[in-house]
Amino acid sequence: MSIQNQQTKLNIGLFGFGVVGESLYKVLQSNSSLNAQISKVCIKHPEKKRNAPAELFTTNPEDILKDESINVVVELIDDSEAALHIVSTALSNKKAVVSANKKLIAEHQGSLLELQQIYNTPFLYESACCASIPVIRNLEEYYDNDLLQGINGIVNGSTNYILTRISEDGLDFAQALKLAQDEGFAESNPALDVEGKDAVNKLTILLTHAYGLVTHPETIVHTGIHKLHEEDAIYAKEKGYEIKLVAQAKKLEDGKIAAFVLPQFLKKDSQLYNVRNEYNGVIIESGLADKQFFYGKGAGGFPTASAVLSDLSALRYDYRYEYKKLRYQQPAELSNDFYLRVYVSFDALFQVPHEIFEHIDEWSSNNRRCSVVGIIHFSKLVNNDWWKQNNTSLLVLPEAIVPYTPKKSVQKERELVFA
Amino acid sequence: MSIQNQQTKLNIGLFGFGVVGESLYKVLQSNSSLNAQISKVCIKHPEKKRNAPAELFTTNPEDILKDESINVVVELIDDSEAALHIVSTALSNKKAVVSANKKLIAEHQGSLLELQQIYNTPFLYESACCASIPVIRNLEEYYDNDLLQGINGIVNGSTNYILTRISEDGLDFAQALKLAQDEGFAESNPALDVEGKDAVNKLTILLTHAYGLVTHPETIVHTGIHKLHEEDAIYAKEKGYEIKLVAQAKKLEDGKIAAFVLPQFLKKDSQLYNVRNEYNGVIIESGLADKQFFYGKGAGGFPTASAVLSDLSALRYDYRYEYKKLRYQQPAELSNDFYLRVYVSFDALFQVPHEIFEHIDEWSSNNRRCSVVGIIHFSKLVNNDWWKQNNTSLLVLPEAIVPYTPKKSVQKERELVFA
Repeated sequence: MSIQNQQTKLNIGLFGFGVVGESLYKVLQSNSSLNAQISKVCIKHPEKKRNAPAELFTTNPEDILKDESINVVVELIDDSEAALHIVSTALSNKKAVVSANKKLIAEHQGSLLELQQIYNTPFLYESACCASIPVIRNLEEYYDNDLLQGINGIVNGSTNYILTRISEDGLDFAQALKLAQDEGFAESNPALDVEGKDAVNKLTILLTHAYGLVTHPETIVHTGIHKLHEEDAIYAKEKGYEIKLVAQAKKLEDGKIAAFVLPQFLKKDSQLYNVRNEYNGVIIESGLADKQFFYGKGAGGFPTASAVLSDLSALRYDYRYEYKKLRYQQPAELSNDFYLRVYVSFDALFQVPHEIFEHIDEWSSNNRRCSVVGIIHFSKLVNNDWWKQNNTSLLVLPEAIVPYTPKKSVQKERELVFA
Repeated sequence: MSIQNQQTKLNIGLFGFGVVGESLYKVLQSNSSLNAQISKVCIKHPEKKRNAPAELFTTNPEDILKDESINVVVELIDDSEAALHIVSTALSNKKAVVSANKKLIAEHQGSLLELQQIYNTPFLYESACCASIPVIRNLEEYYDNDLLQGINGIVNGSTNYILTRISEDGLDFAQALKLAQDEGFAESNPALDVEGKDAVNKLTILLTHAYGLVTHPETIVHTGIHKLHEEDAIYAKEKGYEIKLVAQAKKLEDGKIAAFVLPQFLKKDSQLYNVRNEYNGVIIESGLADKQFFYGKGAGGFPTASAVLSDLSALRYDYRYEYKKLRYQQPAELSNDFYLRVYVSFDALFQVPHEIFEHIDEWSSNNRRCSVVGIIHFSKLVNNDWWKQNNTSLLVLPEAIVPYTPKKSVQKERELVFA
């Protein structure tokens, strides 16, 4: 592809014509200054009525991928396997690609990075993380040095909408999920969202741009909000906490990276505490600048289209991710060697695996639920199923990663507590 | 200057060794990966004790400006006239420049833009707006299309600290100012901050990157918080408002730009409502993405040094502002043709210039103060002194810019109200 200067016209082949695709089409039509037009749209269901001329559409991907006049492919389809074929072929044909497909990008980062390098062709995907919030671009450009200390983000709008309804309207999980689906904030199959898969995909992408750390989402400890218990919400209310699903990454003292997606109790003093409904928010902590907070709509057709549009706009000026931290610095590694302060709740006291805990801060039990707050070594969550049982919920406390030196008397302490 | 790739070492000449300069020096010393070193520091007072080797310092600017081995000048001095000479000479000598000097940049944008173009040399100044918040870079890169609807920002940390103390601790203006000075959040001569000069300088810079609109700060309607009356704070409390000094820009229907810095009553639903103490916050509104919010420390040595550092880091990769909206689009113009909903308070009823108002929503009067809320045409604030009197305070309501069609019966309405 040859987009050398601001004069270059983008001739776009679009895959998918859902809410995002159609918004994009409309905006490009009404804003000639963007110097970009969609000349072909590949769709799966030609029988559907579309708000655009019939001659724009095709069902054959080759009509875009083999058209030499098309210099940019925008990929906005649901099917991540089909998307992989489209994106790979487009890059191989030296067409710049813009995609919103977090699952595709997170799971195939290695090969997609390679293709970008081999064919020297840009691949942009700002909309894949927090939609309208330019978090990737800022990590890539503005935080392009090694002073980045950590990222804490609410990166999934559906789960945040559900948690807000539970907290504010006192709904239970099933009711809140139903409402989220009715309002269009959750898919009919919500597993990707509520089990934390979508959030961990996004964290995987952020790790690449934050620390040059390329990994597969399945290597990162994560869960969602589907196992949260009513008593957990009551505990949160009592303590003045809000429960949020938070994706976190933190540079440890040895330079390695702690990363996970877990539900978290948040105090009022956190900027994330006030992120409500379908909104997303990301706190970026750097060595000098303290904390910065980015907030905006994290889901929905228009916010996603807006990020796609900014990527297209950037292509006019020949922008590409340089993956500086990966290419020009020593990329960081994931670590399992740190301590977390967690809250775990169970159906009954005998289920508590007290040997997991280094230290118990508090525990409580009633006829409905039993909960423990204490410190565990993070390795106890890795490749370990005790906390993945259906009747067990685990949340991190407001200060999730804590300094801790193991004590010799731990065994004794445990015995006292569970005597 | 020749910074062609990521390998290029930055050899820095620094002007000023205050809190920001010293922080920067320390960070660069302890982070070799940044590939940058400060090789000379020009200071005004050689007699002061410094935490750096004596041979680093000089009092002669020429030692930096004429040293061909120095490819980057970082300008961190107070005196904006001296700074203009330093920055201009450095650019003319093809040295890249990083500056934190908002007054310099706002007042001399025209000539500084020209120098950058003539000598094809980068001039970066992220730290000049909201310190650690990367607002310029995002306006320049991420919002690089013409869909940007508006900017609303708390851009001055000192005034925000003072307003927070007034609101939360019930201090009066003089007490709060004293406290801000004691805490290091306000200068010994606070006029630049409290009279809104610093905020309007920042808005001037933002307008260039948001809309390609280059203007002088004195052409923009602005005031500060120094004339706010105790009764204004009481009114805010009664209504559940917070008073903030807000810099605003909005694209009007005709494509022209409304811009001003005025104190504003804010409701809880605004992201700016919760921006407290020395923090800054900026809401960017775009056509598709709704509102995005950026938040972080807006003042202080470390946050400022962090932004300077990001600029230096960007120079390693040959980054420069392209001023795309100025160069490749039709730059926007300022407009005075719109309506504002304002609150104005006076010492006595007879002082109210009721002929200014198009429409009166409410008015009240007691033995201490008289206030009016209503709609005025913005032109009534331009080159017009009625609201600049010492005994008059003017704030905009939460929805500042309002749609309004003048009515023929206005005169009658006024007569009724002031009968």
